[in-house]
Amino acid sequence: MTAENGSGAAADSMRWNGWGDPARARDLPLPVRSLLPLLLGRLRRPAPSIGLDEVLVAPSALTADDVAALGSAVGREYVDTSHEARIRHAGGRSTSDLLRRREREQLVPDAVLRPGTHDEVQACLAAATDRGIAVIPFGGGTSVVGALDPERGRHRAVVSLDLRRLTGLIGFDAVSGEAVLAAGTTGPEAEALLSAHGFELGHYPQSFRYATIGGFAAARSSGQNSAGYGRFDTMVTGLRVATPTGDIDLGRAPGSAAGPDLVRVFLGSEGIFGVITAVRVRVHPIPQDRVLESWSFPDFAAGAEGLRRVAQSGGGPTVIRLSDEAETAVSLAQLGKVGKALRQGASVVTVYEGEGIAERRAATAALLAAAGGTSAGQGAAEDWLHGRFDGPYLRDSLLDAGVFCETLETATTWADLQNLRSAVETALRAGFAAAGARSSVMCHVSHIYPTGASLYFTVLSGIRVDPLATWAGVKAGVNDAILAAGGTISHHHAVGRDHAPWLAHEIGETGIRILTAIKRELDPHGIMNPGAIIPADAVPAKAG
Amino acid sequence: MTAENGSGAAADSMRWNGWGDPARARDLPLPVRSLLPLLLGRLRRPAPSIGLDEVLVAPSALTADDVAALGSAVGREYVDTSHEARIRHAGGRSTSDLLRRREREQLVPDAVLRPGTHDEVQACLAAATDRGIAVIPFGGGTSVVGALDPERGRHRAVVSLDLRRLTGLIGFDAVSGEAVLAAGTTGPEAEALLSAHGFELGHYPQSFRYATIGGFAAARSSGQNSAGYGRFDTMVTGLRVATPTGDIDLGRAPGSAAGPDLVRVFLGSEGIFGVITAVRVRVHPIPQDRVLESWSFPDFAAGAEGLRRVAQSGGGPTVIRLSDEAETAVSLAQLGKVGKALRQGASVVTVYEGEGIAERRAATAALLAAAGGTSAGQGAAEDWLHGRFDGPYLRDSLLDAGVFCETLETATTWADLQNLRSAVETALRAGFAAAGARSSVMCHVSHIYPTGASLYFTVLSGIRVDPLATWAGVKAGVNDAILAAGGTISHHHAVGRDHAPWLAHEIGETGIRILTAIKRELDPHGIMNPGAIIPADAVPAKAG
Repeated sequence: MTAENGSGAAADSMRWNGWGDPARARDLPLPVRSLLPLLLGRLRRPAPSIGLDEVLVAPSALTADDVAALGSAVGREYVDTSHEARIRHAGGRSTSDLLRRREREQLVPDAVLRPGTHDEVQACLAAATDRGIAVIPFGGGTSVVGALDPERGRHRAVVSLDLRRLTGLIGFDAVSGEAVLAAGTTGPEAEALLSAHGFELGHYPQSFRYATIGGFAAARSSGQNSAGYGRFDTMVTGLRVATPTGDIDLGRAPGSAAGPDLVRVFLGSEGIFGVITAVRVRVHPIPQDRVLESWSFPDFAAGAEGLRRVAQSGGGPTVIRLSDEAETAVSLAQLGKVGKALRQGASVVTVYEGEGIAERRAATAALLAAAGGTSAGQGAAEDWLHGRFDGPYLRDSLLDAGVFCETLETATTWADLQNLRSAVETALRAGFAAAGARSSVMCHVSHIYPTGASLYFTVLSGIRVDPLATWAGVKAGVNDAILAAGGTISHHHAVGRDHAPWLAHEIGETGIRILTAIKRELDPHGIMNPGAIIPADAVPAKAG
Repeated sequence: MTAENGSGAAADSMRWNGWGDPARARDLPLPVRSLLPLLLGRLRRPAPSIGLDEVLVAPSALTADDVAALGSAVGREYVDTSHEARIRHAGGRSTSDLLRRREREQLVPDAVLRPGTHDEVQACLAAATDRGIAVIPFGGGTSVVGALDPERGRHRAVVSLDLRRLTGLIGFDAVSGEAVLAAGTTGPEAEALLSAHGFELGHYPQSFRYATIGGFAAARSSGQNSAGYGRFDTMVTGLRVATPTGDIDLGRAPGSAAGPDLVRVFLGSEGIFGVITAVRVRVHPIPQDRVLESWSFPDFAAGAEGLRRVAQSGGGPTVIRLSDEAETAVSLAQLGKVGKALRQGASVVTVYEGEGIAERRAATAALLAAAGGTSAGQGAAEDWLHGRFDGPYLRDSLLDAGVFCETLETATTWADLQNLRSAVETALRAGFAAAGARSSVMCHVSHIYPTGASLYFTVLSGIRVDPLATWAGVKAGVNDAILAAGGTISHHHAVGRDHAPWLAHEIGETGIRILTAIKRELDPHGIMNPGAIIPADAVPAKAG
């Protein structure tokens, strides 16, 4: 069942200024193209993309001594100061990142290091600490929160530490259902390695085809099958980390009371304490069966009530997601089913894999029906499954057509879900309106828990004169609204630099002090990903 | 279904030198009394217990100024320097604690503070910081790892901070299935408060009748229903903590990627960073049905294989526990079923509560039968359920009969389970043999996970001249063996002072540095529970 997951294309084969494999890029479906002016008004096509060789970057700030020292750590051939490598490691894949890739002058790291072992990672950190060079860990390059920006903080140079050579299955235990994967292993590579043993990880975020195991851990990722297999942080049973002041190996037992769970200190740490080099994960036998079913609800609220009942009952589907009325209509329009879209309310996709499918489906169906849902066959669920990793390609086509398209997400309790959804939508619309732009907002729920759920928003707007500044203003208003409504600043995209200014509101000054204290201890010179999660000046740079 | 859980007896009504309610104390069953000399050789009755008023303690080290300052924080009537209060807060309920309670001279805290609000807790910490007084947070007093020892570290005095006045249901959300409980609420009090809403927490460790919600969180407790409702740390969705340098409120959403999960920094922190004053927990409607079933396996290994299949299949029983051959025989002997004991292998108890019982039972039964199990009716499961909180009473009777009885526990992966069990048993037997004593070891598995399980050991031995020293030596050997075999130093009893010297082996020096850095930040003068988890001198005491 993993063949459909796509090729194990490496990050380097991703378009340097867009998403994914150029061969998979696609034009906007005609119905969407017709719909856009109705939703957003007249569109203005942006300046065309430029070639990679046309980009202007500052010369590398690394000295010959720096290169020699880093070369001693990692091998001279793996210290890459080429124009292309530096540009390919200039950031992640948020819409703002893609807009920056269209600019003539770009900020890039001074070099790309490609260690091949844990010890080489450790040697890189030692050399960088010694020479006062900032280090940005880089996996699949799919961050959408600015976690990969080449920020040097108070340091004189910054390097991107590309972990893609740390690849492979380091350990496998079929009895316990555990695998140890090198941090740079991508989603498809991991599934291919595990499928040789008859097992799978089952972690399928939209970034699956490019993102790495270490990145999933560092960013607390959550995948489409989270209802069945849990968020990535619940899959992790152990970690190996290289920090500037020593290694750490964590995770001896599936349950422990041996003090606070330090695995959780590194899950979500986004490279500010060190580099995750290997991850031990829970795996399960590849499910033999899969059943799909779509549902239709009169509106989002009724659908959310159905999902709540399923989450609180337990033992339900492997995948469950609820699209609001707008997303349901756009999904149908994309498929050319505009007529159907007009009479459709909110749609739900369910997928069942593994043991006891018939019983789980029957129990789930009873709960969804009781909440006002109507079974709608397999069609829509199949459409979703077929295109589930392709959303980011559509964004590139929209940008080319003059449409700004971005996503953001949050989570809260079931009791507060409607209020949070309304607060975010209002902030999105108000933000674009203040910039004189029309916008269209869609929302879905794709991760459910007994006590609450995630909310994932997609917003479209016509591109104005300065879309980066416009979006920065809109996003700030949304972040304020999320925190005021009691939501989390991120359910699975993480903090990076984009959300960092809002984190103190969520975890308090005491929370920021805890993170800063850990960072000072493990990374006393502050070389690790400065500016991500906590301010770059939280830890003073090395003198001299 | 909560009436059976016993009275909401407060910690103060617990026997000062034994377990629980004096009215529930019971003599050793005759068959056990007959069996003991066969197992352990000739027994020597220890010196009889002494009266509380016969205990000699040092005068309180608090000055009149100290008492006045602490009285300003908490109210003068809640600064208790009485002989009885100090002795009642001298430690927890390990066997070593109980042996110490039989001695003439005892170490006790200099006073007991009883704050009634979060702000009073915060004021206590401020006054104690200001005056250089160590603080030992105290909930139900049921620690079995020395977490409540009145250790002053480098400070001139030490107070016990009794949290039992912080009681009650602070918030309740039936839609999301969440409740906020004050940290000093005991297990039975919490269930009584929730049952008024038709909900339960479902956390039933053996300490249930006395232990508190805050204690469950601080020690990462795990209860008998963990297969159904999870360990306590998975139930926690939020915390409020008072630290010597500020408050922190954590937990906004059921899933988040807003940096590392700081709730997990305080779960398992055992009071070394601050005091948990309120806990937000996931709760569920009181299950309407319950089904019990016992199983018999040829041996422990076959039973463990059955439990593994159940854990990896998911959606199984609410309670599942496997007793090895020795524990199975002793359980039967206790009930006067000695004849049956001789032909019994290893027994399994299963309990099903909540939704889909018939399907879950059928699926579990098929897995257990395939692993070699035979259904053995309800009887043994009912016996277990009936007596499940009474084990500690038996220990008091054993001590009076001259039998040393103690428990310890660990966890590992399924693949390493047999090896770890064997290593611990060997270390226990060898340790007592080196002290010239016969011993009897029993083991059970009571917490299962997809990737592994807990192991819980009970050891009996005849009491020798210095049982405290004998046990210290035996336990050290066991701890070494656990770590050498890859197990965790504790699955749910926590670290306290007893396990602290072994923690560095488990989490590495880098792990100890992380904990120390957090402690220095939140508790810069090291007043909080000095010596628990990390060495007391990790944080320097306040000068002057």
